[in-house]
Amino acid sequence: MKIELKEGERIDRLEREGISIIQSSQVFSFSLDAVLLADFASLPRTKKGVVVDLCSGNGAVAFLLTAKTKNKILGVELQSALVDMAKRTVAMNNLEEKVSFLQADVRELKGVIAKDSVDVITCNPPYFKVAKKNLTNKLDSYTLARHEVALPLEELLEAMSGLLKMKGKAYMVHRPDRMADIIILARKYRLEPKRVQFVSPKKGKESNIMLIEFIKDGGLGGMRILPELVVFDEQGDYTSELKQVLFGEADDE
Amino acid sequence: MKIELKEGERIDRLEREGISIIQSSQVFSFSLDAVLLADFASLPRTKKGVVVDLCSGNGAVAFLLTAKTKNKILGVELQSALVDMAKRTVAMNNLEEKVSFLQADVRELKGVIAKDSVDVITCNPPYFKVAKKNLTNKLDSYTLARHEVALPLEELLEAMSGLLKMKGKAYMVHRPDRMADIIILARKYRLEPKRVQFVSPKKGKESNIMLIEFIKDGGLGGMRILPELVVFDEQGDYTSELKQVLFGEADDE
Repeated sequence: MKIELKEGERIDRLEREGISIIQSSQVFSFSLDAVLLADFASLPRTKKGVVVDLCSGNGAVAFLLTAKTKNKILGVELQSALVDMAKRTVAMNNLEEKVSFLQADVRELKGVIAKDSVDVITCNPPYFKVAKKNLTNKLDSYTLARHEVALPLEELLEAMSGLLKMKGKAYMVHRPDRMADIIILARKYRLEPKRVQFVSPKKGKESNIMLIEFIKDGGLGGMRILPELVVFDEQGDYTSELKQVLFGEADDE
Repeated sequence: MKIELKEGERIDRLEREGISIIQSSQVFSFSLDAVLLADFASLPRTKKGVVVDLCSGNGAVAFLLTAKTKNKILGVELQSALVDMAKRTVAMNNLEEKVSFLQADVRELKGVIAKDSVDVITCNPPYFKVAKKNLTNKLDSYTLARHEVALPLEELLEAMSGLLKMKGKAYMVHRPDRMADIIILARKYRLEPKRVQFVSPKKGKESNIMLIEFIKDGGLGGMRILPELVVFDEQGDYTSELKQVLFGEADDE
């Protein structure tokens, strides 16, 4: 099958999953966040679970998850250019039975995905809190994907909670500086944080990425803090623990 | 000066601070938590700050802090046996100008310590959430010091907030599994978490100690996650970073 690439697009390879993914440096290309999130998420082994990836972007998390579950994954993304990219990746890799994408606003899934029906949600949401002054900027594709312009944190958590079954799990990657807001708003919407992993760019540096697992209607408290994950070693190479995440390989040392 | 030791008491040495501290394995002896908390806290250099250590126990945190500040430290402890122990440690070390202790319930400090007057609070509170079944147990000194029997988390945070000046700082050591409750209740009482450090017993193990800094009326958000602190290395020896905390010495390796 011939897949047409649009201007600025390229094809990158997810080696571990054996998937070629369409990316665009102008519109959106996935980052380490997506890889960490897909690695962090625990997915049901059985084929009966409903798995949804919200704020799917070009589908990276959804594609990465195919290696972890036999369940079909539904990606939801607001921006049609990204949905289009993700759908061409599906076609290019013959993944129609494993992944599908939906162009939709996460807050407007009523009637599209049944309430209280989802077993696992993953989400790599737009991160950066929007300062008022930034709103005067052009709301381009890049801004929408990176900032809470289209989807404030609270509305995202409310939507996640609405979709999840009781005891369903949600996995999110975010920034540690929003942790207090995330925990406070999550509990407001019956999402209890249960497992957190902080990622640090280098040993001895403050964390810049937070991975968090919520259980809907989970018992209050009992949060576990997993061992810190460090990205680069002193020499600027990936640490063995990060290689494990990226390539699934153990370090030889 | 001759200091009388009571039954079960012993004298331990805080080498770094040059202080001999009275301990009791039957009533209370301080743990790594106290050392980590004292190390984590940032204290005003000038002599004008008001520094209060709540849930002082035998005074370990207060005594450890004397090495970090010229401000006099007031320790507050509910159990008179522990206050008595702490006061004898003060006398034994001639620390009357640097530390004093008050037997009081943290929730009943009105008229004793002025509202909105404190620059820095440290607190190593009773940790373990009390299950109803435990309440039938004898409420001995050990139970009071270890469990939220006498002082529920919410009342502690409310009291801390009442004592602190606007922009005053509070430092607490607690368990990661209570982090969600701590953050939610802290913000309710205008305490914004700003800096957190997780402590892991060994590399690759989940954290079992959390150090947290709050700023009263601090801007919302902006929490920083410091590098994970690991206690023991693979050989079961203290890591170099922990030696730095315990002894103020760098590792030779």
